[in-house]
Formats: sequence, C-alpha cells, structure tokens
Amino acid sequence: MRFEELNWFDIEEYLQHDDRLILVLGACEQHGYLSLLCDVRIPMALADAASQQSGVLVTPAINYGVSPYFLEYPGTISLRVSTLLDMIEDVVRSVHRQGFRRLLFLNGYGGNTPAQLRLHEVANQLPNLAISWYAWWQSNSVIEVAQKHNLKPTHASWLEAFPFTRVAPLPNEPKIPPYVPGLVSALEARKVYGDGNFGGPYSVENFIMDEIFEASLLDILQILQFKTPQ
Amino acid sequence: MRFEELNWFDIEEYLQHDDRLILVLGACEQHGYLSLLCDVRIPMALADAASQQSGVLVTPAINYGVSPYFLEYPGTISLRVSTLLDMIEDVVRSVHRQGFRRLLFLNGYGGNTPAQLRLHEVANQLPNLAISWYAWWQSNSVIEVAQKHNLKPTHASWLEAFPFTRVAPLPNEPKIPPYVPGLVSALEARKVYGDGNFGGPYSVENFIMDEIFEASLLDILQILQFKTPQ
Amino acid sequence: MRFEELNWFDIEEYLQHDDRLILVLGACEQHGYLSLLCDVRIPMALADAASQQSGVLVTPAINYGVSPYFLEYPGTISLRVSTLLDMIEDVVRSVHRQGFRRLLFLNGYGGNTPAQLRLHEVANQLPNLAISWYAWWQSNSVIEVAQKHNLKPTHASWLEAFPFTRVAPLPNEPKIPPYVPGLVSALEARKVYGDGNFGGPYSVENFIMDEIFEASLLDILQILQFKTPQ
Amino acid sequence: MRFEELNWFDIEEYLQHDDRLILVLGACEQHGYLSLLCDVRIPMALADAASQQSGVLVTPAINYGVSPYFLEYPGTISLRVSTLLDMIEDVVRSVHRQGFRRLLFLNGYGGNTPAQLRLHEVANQLPNLAISWYAWWQSNSVIEVAQKHNLKPTHASWLEAFPFTRVAPLPNEPKIPPYVPGLVSALEARKVYGDGNFGGPYSVENFIMDEIFEASLLDILQILQFKTPQ
Amino acid sequence: MRFEELNWFDIEEYLQHDDRLILVLGACEQHGYLSLLCDVRIPMALADAASQQSGVLVTPAINYGVSPYFLEYPGTISLRVSTLLDMIEDVVRSVHRQGFRRLLFLNGYGGNTPAQLRLHEVANQLPNLAISWYAWWQSNSVIEVAQKHNLKPTHASWLEAFPFTRVAPLPNEPKIPPYVPGLVSALEARKVYGDGNFGGPYSVENFIMDEIFEASLLDILQILQFKTPQ
Amino acid sequence: MRFEELNWFDIEEYLQHDDRLILVLGACEQHGYLSLLCDVRIPMALADAASQQSGVLVTPAINYGVSPYFLEYPGTISLRVSTLLDMIEDVVRSVHRQGFRRLLFLNGYGGNTPAQLRLHEVANQLPNLAISWYAWWQSNSVIEVAQKHNLKPTHASWLEAFPFTRVAPLPNEPKIPPYVPGLVSALEARKVYGDGNFGGPYSVENFIMDEIFEASLLDILQILQFKTPQ
Repeated sequence: MRFEELNWFDIEEYLQHDDRLILVLGACEQHGYLSLLCDVRIPMALADAASQQSGVLVTPAINYGVSPYFLEYPGTISLRVSTLLDMIEDVVRSVHRQGFRRLLFLNGYGGNTPAQLRLHEVANQLPNLAISWYAWWQSNSVIEVAQKHNLKPTHASWLEAFPFTRVAPLPNEPKIPPYVPGLVSALEARKVYGDGNFGGPYSVENFIMDEIFEASLLDILQILQFKTPQ
Repeated sequence: MRFEELNWFDIEEYLQHDDRLILVLGACEQHGYLSLLCDVRIPMALADAASQQSGVLVTPAINYGVSPYFLEYPGTISLRVSTLLDMIEDVVRSVHRQGFRRLLFLNGYGGNTPAQLRLHEVANQLPNLAISWYAWWQSNSVIEVAQKHNLKPTHASWLEAFPFTRVAPLPNEPKIPPYVPGLVSALEARKVYGDGNFGGPYSVENFIMDEIFEASLLDILQILQFKTPQ
Repeated sequence: MRFEELNWFDIEEYLQHDDRLILVLGACEQHGYLSLLCDVRIPMALADAASQQSGVLVTPAINYGVSPYFLEYPGTISLRVSTLLDMIEDVVRSVHRQGFRRLLFLNGYGGNTPAQLRLHEVANQLPNLAISWYAWWQSNSVIEVAQKHNLKPTHASWLEAFPFTRVAPLPNEPKIPPYVPGLVSALEARKVYGDGNFGGPYSVENFIMDEIFEASLLDILQILQFKTPQ
Repeated sequence: MRFEELNWFDIEEYLQHDDRLILVLGACEQHGYLSLLCDVRIPMALADAASQQSGVLVTPAINYGVSPYFLEYPGTISLRVSTLLDMIEDVVRSVHRQGFRRLLFLNGYGGNTPAQLRLHEVANQLPNLAISWYAWWQSNSVIEVAQKHNLKPTHASWLEAFPFTRVAPLPNEPKIPPYVPGLVSALEARKVYGDGNFGGPYSVENFIMDEIFEASLLDILQILQFKTPQ
Repeated sequence: MRFEELNWFDIEEYLQHDDRLILVLGACEQHGYLSLLCDVRIPMALADAASQQSGVLVTPAINYGVSPYFLEYPGTISLRVSTLLDMIEDVVRSVHRQGFRRLLFLNGYGGNTPAQLRLHEVANQLPNLAISWYAWWQSNSVIEVAQKHNLKPTHASWLEAFPFTRVAPLPNEPKIPPYVPGLVSALEARKVYGDGNFGGPYSVENFIMDEIFEASLLDILQILQFKTPQ
Repeated sequence: MRFEELNWFDIEEYLQHDDRLILVLGACEQHGYLSLLCDVRIPMALADAASQQSGVLVTPAINYGVSPYFLEYPGTISLRVSTLLDMIEDVVRSVHRQGFRRLLFLNGYGGNTPAQLRLHEVANQLPNLAISWYAWWQSNSVIEVAQKHNLKPTHASWLEAFPFTRVAPLPNEPKIPPYVPGLVSALEARKVYGDGNFGGPYSVENFIMDEIFEASLLDILQILQFKTPQ
C-alpha cells in the first residue's frame, strides 16, 4: 500500500508490527519513444505488486534523478548529484526516526547509483538500520531472462517498453548502438544518441516483458525478507 | 497533460508553440485523518484540471516538502530547507535550458514558501524567465469562499478534506485550535497538535469544497495567461 | 542591554539567573526614501526598549537579509537563503551551548521568514530549546492599529517611516500600489516598484507611529514571558 | 558615511562619482574584560574616521566571525568558516552588481582571515574588481608603535583596550602569556586562557592608544587611494 | 611525466602542442593483506607507463576516495561523496582554465564512480571539454584475461596483488566470498568481510598480473588518442 | 612509515601502542622554476625523516591546496576553500574513529591555513583529540636560520629550493620583490609575480638548506611528544 492511501494513524499502527519500507527512486528523462517517467513507472509497478503480496508499505516516488547528459532532450529534468543525495538522506532520516528499520530502495535509474554511497554514510550514523538496494535491470534474474531471449538490456530500448511505459508507437527495426566517446556533455549526447534509444530492438513480445517483471518481483519479495547472514 | 504521458518528442513539439509549464510542489506529512499526500493531491488535481482547459503541461510532482515540526507523526517525510531549494533550482534550470519561459508553481504546502526566494535568486540569473507562484489556500478567492461560509482555513481540517484526500472517516465535532508556544520542536508539536488538525470542523459539505476548487481553478487559469504589466 | 556593552563575565553572571535572549534579524535593502537599514533599526529599537523593561539581553544584529529582488537598487546587499539559514543556525548553536534556552527572534524583514524552518530543524536537535519569532508588522496588534487609522501595512511606506528611520524628506502624495507579475527578477522589480515604496502614504502622524511601536513592544514583553501551554 | 544614514537614491548618486567602499568585519567573542564586540567597534571606529576624511561609504558591519575555540566563554557567537565565507561572497557580489569596484575590507578579527581566499576566488569571477584587506593589528605601522613602547600585540590585552571598548575596570598587573598546546578545543581553550587575555598588560596610557589609532587610520587613508602598480 | 617533475614553464610549453592530461583517482582503504594505497598505486603505475609511451602528462593523485563501509578497518580514510565530487570539479575547472581539453581519468577505485556524474555536469558548463574515464578492473580487456585464467575480479584479492601492491605475505588458500546483506554499515562490513578480501585466491602467478597490466595499458593508450565519432 | 607501505593489520597493531599520526598538506601550484609539488615534497620529506626517528605513521599527502591567485600559471590546481576544509574534516573523522588521538598536520602551503579553523570546529565535536599544526617556513626556528644568513623567506625563492624540489636550472640574480596591490585576481597575479618567485635569491648554498631542514625536523620531533600543559 502506498503512503498516499494512508494517514499517520495508519502508519503508526503499521509500525506496531512491521518496520520495513519500500522506497522508489526514478528519473524524469528522455526514454526515446517511451514515457519520460519510465524510470518511475517501472519500479512503482514492481513496488505496488510487491506491496500487495508482502504488505510492506511504499513511500511516494522521488520523481527526479541525476540526468545531466540528457538535458538537451526536452522534458529531461536533472537534479545535481548533491541534491539527490541530500534528498535521499533526508528521507532516510525521517523514516528512521519514526521506527522504520529495514528499507528497500527500488531504483529505476542508473544515474541514481551514487545514492548508495550516501546510504552507507547514513548507515554509519543511524543505529539498527538495514538497507537494501535493487536495480531491476541489473539483477541476475533479469539478465538471465534477457540472455535466454538473446537480448541485451539497454536504455530506452525493448527493456523498458512495458505496456505501461508506452506512450507512442515504436519503430519496428532495431537500432544500432551508437559509439559514445567518453563522458559526453548534453550537447554531444543528443548528437550521439539521436532518438534516445541506446541500441537494440524497440520492443519485444509481451510475454518476455512479463517474464522480466515476474523475475524482478520474485527478487524483491525475496529481499523483503531481509535475511541476515548466519 | 502530465509529462508521464509524453515522450521527449512530444515536449519538443509543445515547445514549438508554447513555453508555459505547471510545476507541482507538495509534502508528505501528517494531515490528521486525511491522506499523508493531501498537499500533493490537491495541487495535482488543480493542475490536471487547469491543464485540460489550457493545454499547459504539468511536471511530475515534488512529493516531499519541508516539515520538520511534524516528524514525530509517522509517515511524515521532511526535506531540509536547503534540499528543497536545491531541488527546485535544479528543476527550473533544467526546463529553462529547454525553452520553458513561463512557469507556474502550484504549491500545496506552506512549508515550501522559502522556495520563492530561491526562485527570485534563479530569476536573477536566467534570462527571460517569468515565474508565478500560487498557494491555493492563501488566495483571496479561496479565503472569500471560506468567509462566505463562516469557515477558517487551517491545516488538516475541512479545508483539505476533499473527496480525493479522504482515506478514513472524519470526526463530527469541530476541534478547538491548540495554543502553540512559538517555533516548536517535533516532540512539542505532536503534544500540541494531537490528531494533527489545527482547529475547526473536520469536514464541510461537498458543494463548499467544489466552490473552493472552482475558485482556485479560475485563479490558476487566469495566472496561466501570464499577463505583463502595462 | 546589548552584548556590545558587556564582557563575557557579565554574560556568565546573567546566565546564573536567566536564559532568555533577544536576537535581531534585519536587512540592508532599499526602503524608498527611508534608511537602507530600516529593517535593522526598527527591531533593534524594539529590542532595546524591551530589554530595558525586562532585563533580557540583546545580541548584535544580523545586518543582512535575503533580498534578491531588490539587487538593482544600489545599497541593497542580499544574502542567499542558504547563507542566512546557516548563519542563524550557527548563532543558535553558539548560545544554546552556553546555556541560553529561550530565544526570541525579533525579525525586521519578511525575506528572513524561511529562517523559521531552519529553527524548527535546529529545535529538533537541541534539547530544551524554546524559540519564539516576532515579525512586528505582521502582528495582530500592529494590524489593528493600522486598521483603526484606515492604513495598510506595506514595504517602505508610512509603516516603516519612524522618526529614527527617516534620512530624507518624504513625498506628500500617497503612492498607488504597483502591479507585480509573479516572482520578479531584480531588473523587473526595479521597473515595477519605481522609488521602492509598495504603495500608500509615505508617512503618517507621529502619534500613529508611537501607537505602532507601543503595540509591538507590549507584544514582545508578553512573549518574553515564554508562557508554556497548560 | 554609513549605509544606515542613507537611502538607495544616495547610493545611486554616490556611484556616479565614486566606486569605493569600506566593509567592516568583526566578531562577537570573549575579549577578557573588554566588550564582546571589540572586534567590531575598533574597525568601525577606524572606518568612520576614514570615511569622514575620504568620503568613502561604509557598509553595515558583519557582527560575527569564526571563533570556535572561544565557545565556552559565554557571549561568544561563532559562525562556521563556510558560513562566513558565503556571507562575504554574497556581500561582494551584491555591491559589485551595483557598480562598486574598489573594496577595502577593514578586518577586526584574525579568525576572519580565511575570507581572503574566498575573495581571491570571487575576484577571479567578477571583472574589474580591486579588493584590499587591512587587519589593523597586523600592520607594520601598528607593530612599530607597539615596539616603540616595548609592547607586544595580543588578543584582549592592552592592544584592544581603547576607551570605546572598555566596559569594566581592568586588572593592573600584566598577565603571563599561557602555553597553548596546539589547535585546542573550546573546552581546553577556556582552561588555557583563563580570563581570556593572551598575555601582557591589560591597558596602557591613552596616548599610546591614540598613536595606534592614528597609525592605522593613516594606513587606511593610503590604501583607499587604491594605487595601481606602474 | 608527472606534474611533480615539472615547473609551470614546462606545463605552459606542453600546452603549446598538447591538451591531454591523465588524472589519477584512488583510495586509502583496507585491501586485506595488500597496501592501503593499492587503488592509487595501480592506476599510477598505469599512468606512468602510459605517459612514457604517449608523452601525456600526469597530475598528482587524489589519494582518498569514498569508502564509508570500510571505516572500521584501521587505515581507511573516507571522503564524503560530496567532498570527492567537489574536489574533482575543482581539479577539472583548474586545468580547463589553463587549456587542457582532453582529460582521461584513470580510476583505481569503484567508490569513486559517482564522480562521473559530476563530470557530466561540469562538461555541460565548460566548452570543448572531452572527458574519458577508465576503471581498469571493469574493462573488457581485463575481464577477458581473468576469464581466460578462470578468475573472478574481486576487491583485495589476486586482482590487486601486483608485486608493487604487496606489503606482506599472502594466504595460500582462496577465500570463500562472503554473503553481504545489502548496503552495510562499517560495523557490519567488518564482520562480513573479515580480512577484507571479497573472495577468491589471494594471489596468482606474476605472468597473469603482467597480462592484466598490459591489457589495461593498451586500453589506455587507445583512449589517449581521443578518437571522435564519425 | 607511510600508510602506503602498510596494510590495515599493520595500522591496527600500531594503534595498540600509539595514537599519533602525521598528516601532510601541500599544494600543486606554480613555484617559479621549482617543482609544482614543492609544497608536498618539503613536508613529506620532513614527515619521512620525523617518522623514521619517532616511529609515527604518515598518511598519504593531500596533494592539492587552495591557490586561486595562481590559476593563470599552468599546472596550478586549486581547490575551493570549502573543498579543502571538507576534505580535512573527513580525514580527521576517519582516523579519529579508528583510535588516532594525537594528530600533527605538517603543512607545506600558506593557502591551507584556513583549515585550522575547521580543525578547531572538529575538535569541539570529537572527544580527546589533540591537534597540532606546523608550517615549517613560519616557525621561529626556520626564521632564525634565515635571519642568521640575512635571508628573507618568500614563496618560490631560495627558501623552497631544496635539492629535491629543483627541476630546472635557477637564475643567478636575486629578484626584486614585486608590489602587490591587494587581494589580486589570477590575471593580475600573473602580471605582478612574473616568473612566480616572490623576491630574493633563487637559491642559496646547500648547507643553509640543510640547516633549515634540520631546524624544522627538530621542531617536529619536539611537537610529536605532544606535551600537555602543567
């Protein structure tokens, strides 16, 4: 269940018997022909599904990520790294204060990865805090599904073309991955990436997307058990 | 229309003929018996309605605000002032770069007001930027509706009890406004505010809420014309 | 009494029997024909008067505020929001460490209001700290005096034209309030506000100013009792 | 003349024929038996005298400096280094925007010295800015006066005991300078420095203080000519 | 050649005919039985070798990285993420100002990866800047060498056990990779990682290490050509 | 011994019987005809010598300092003041956590002096921390050696021309110290300082340099005893 469906009495009650929380990180950035909010919609869909099965609550999404290289694509809104990290720290301190102790970050966007280090820093300061981080497209489970179907996961390609992230028709022909000369500026990035897809087919059959989603969901449900080492 | 329904091609096309944007600020904090996300849901509802009539696009909500005094109420997530201001600056710089020039901030939460000063600072640096700010509950139009019905606007009371912000039954008897001794800490705030309502009836008849909503919407549509002084 | 009249032995002695403190916030910015330091002089005059009657000590004024919109008026010196908030936090931490526990901020300038949120943040971290905030021109008492005389409080108008803030002759005719199109940049602000007065008469009779001052002083003396809720 | 005696029209007029400015930095910290505001009062007295002779304007003092080691002495208010530097940058950017081009910082306190580096940083960004810095007690002129009278300049001793910084009777016997083991914490500093004087006589005859003042004033008037190298 | 072997005249001369630069990032953190400075020594060795063959200059190493999880291992010195990013930005701005336009970051440590995003941000602001980033242990070339020898690259294992990073005898038996429960705090990390090796053999034969080194060096020499896309 | 020669087991063992540490601060900036890294090489040489005699460990050098005024000299890399201070704070917190309690900063560069204030701030927060600071060229011992030989210590002159900092032939004729008009920008600094030497002979006989080095070394060995006041 999402925070927005609840009031503070509900949260207080929840904390009587559970201290887990799912936090969704995303981005608002170009995804080729797909929704600008792909990176929110995908982890949020996973969060909702995982919440339904596990009962773990879901915080409101952080709708923006760090996307400096895509700023020449209209609709891309990029936080500075420092802003994102501060934001995530504030969120963690807030919920830790109230008794949440086991946090799962469902990350929808690679540019948010630096937040991991800030989370380590915060974990050094807040007692009894267990933090997990799950980036669905980097999980072994998802990579296996991709490999099974001879597919390569790339930005704004088939990988993110779920039914719920499509907002326009997609090209039929796959894209040849562009050559990227280093850490490019936004101006160069737009030249290099053209329509924004990083290469490969623009879409695959729905059953593959279902497999991807299910594989991720299983991972998440597993992580939500927060097993400690023996 | 919301960014999430669009891809970057859509935004590029929009910028051919329009440079206005609606940006929604909110909070995730205690609202008594109402949704923790009241302050997002209300301006977002207004934004959607205004967008439908004006065609102006709506960015993804900033789901968190500055709520340090409510941190003892579970479910409240508070950004530091500095974090919020940095975030808003990043958003403005991103969209200004892409050609948006007339921005309307629809603010759902009083704790976000300091962002106005950062917006002034940014406006001193970015050319040809027109920024408006609308806090619905502080508008003359809304205050007039309230006065007409002998009501006083307060946090988490009838004022925010729209059909779409209710997540639980509301008490019938009005609340006596608490005495607040200065700028309280979160611990004191919880003692002072009890259930979180700042005083007054918990709900009023729906037609009044409709009047409030309509009055705000008219204001917003008016502001979206971005009239310049003569 | 002001800190500048004392040495540290005096403060140590004072802390034996009192833990209250008056802190003055102001600004250095255009005030039309009035002194650039209006916003310091007024709260400082109130602080001195309140100190004389209550014995509460007064810290040195923070002579600058956040005034980005007035930067095109020569003599306006504006801190970034972040700078002001850091400064106020540093001051509070310093005096709290030494035993001051009840702080009254006498604010002379609206642009300093964001400091309230930082004070809430600090109050969450420092034990046993009671903070009050008083902005004289927004108090009910002052507004009542204004209403009694059919006057409206506005920036750089009669409201701030005390004998001790005048540095030049004032125009006789009242000013028509300008139309302000949103959160303006400094360049636009100068065009809009012209001489800097926000509208209304440039001065009123001294007895009204005395009433204003007395009403504020009474408020302050009341707040300095730091009554706790029952 | 001080900003507080002027309005913005006056500054605008001044900028027609001059672009120099005196900025006063100080501190609010223990000075033994002397005023907590010694470090403001001395440079401000010099600024007023220099202004009277040169016509150069004087900004409102920055009443606080960086004094972490004195925080155990009640009445000491310390900014973090970062806060002071930000503040000074904000001040310089504000006045540079309005046309001031030759700035003399009259510094009253050694702990403010790091501001010099930020000023260098700012000077790399703002065109045509000439900045001078004068710390009266470190000037050759003042050191010569001290040497002539067999005196050593130290914190809170005779050196700062001007008639206008005394707020209490001073001990007759000189103090033996304490041994300071490195960069001490505030707790250690109070143990080490006792009454706060760093060693030497607590006062000297007034004519010596006059010589000190005059020597400084001559330096300042000289610097205010902002001679450029040939 | 390293900066330390040169004076500013040498750099000025170099900039007449070349604008490339190698910048070395590392860490000072536990590496099991290996040197605390492994992550500096390895990229610095590569930088020196590449410099010798290409003539490209090498800046002084940034000797610290972001290692919050290893802080319970004595000798680990960790910068906050924000500090590292600021530092790298300062370095880039400095050398860009002087005419360096093609920068190769030789990174020795995974915890420095967030710097990439700051580099993208800086690249958006500085004209004509080409930045490449090379993390030797993540390169395809090195991974291929590892795979050829049935080895897995892990922290503080054989992968980093070059002759020039060994400071003590190494265990003979390989280590079983530990189970890591999420983003651990420093206290948990020490429990989980024991001697600090992340799993696998502690050393391999020197010829393999030579292959690793040579593969990396070839990559670097290739990148130093800064080929642009056609 | 340097950290780089050790692994974490070594540090842990060291901390069983000692809690002292030498930390080296430097700069990468123009030094006339001398190495860009003079300010690292000199304190590092002193640190190594002191370590050999005392057994106190030496951390990896911070290779960059705050040198905004030299940025027009190619090869100068300048950190912002804020970056350096953050870095030093991070280093101190890291080693304090692990049990180091007596820290000697061997500073090679005047522009790093503001770090002292941050160290005071940190000392107020970390218990049982003793910090010393030694800037060799400002020590009485070194000044005495200079005076004995009728020499004046200045930047990039004979003072820093040790055998191990020379990277090119030095001019024979002494330089006339330039006139410096205030806190100059980088552009002005280059005009004023020409080859970078601040005045005086470019070199002196080696036995004088040995005297300088020995005088410093004795100071350092003395400080490393961290004698407390009685």
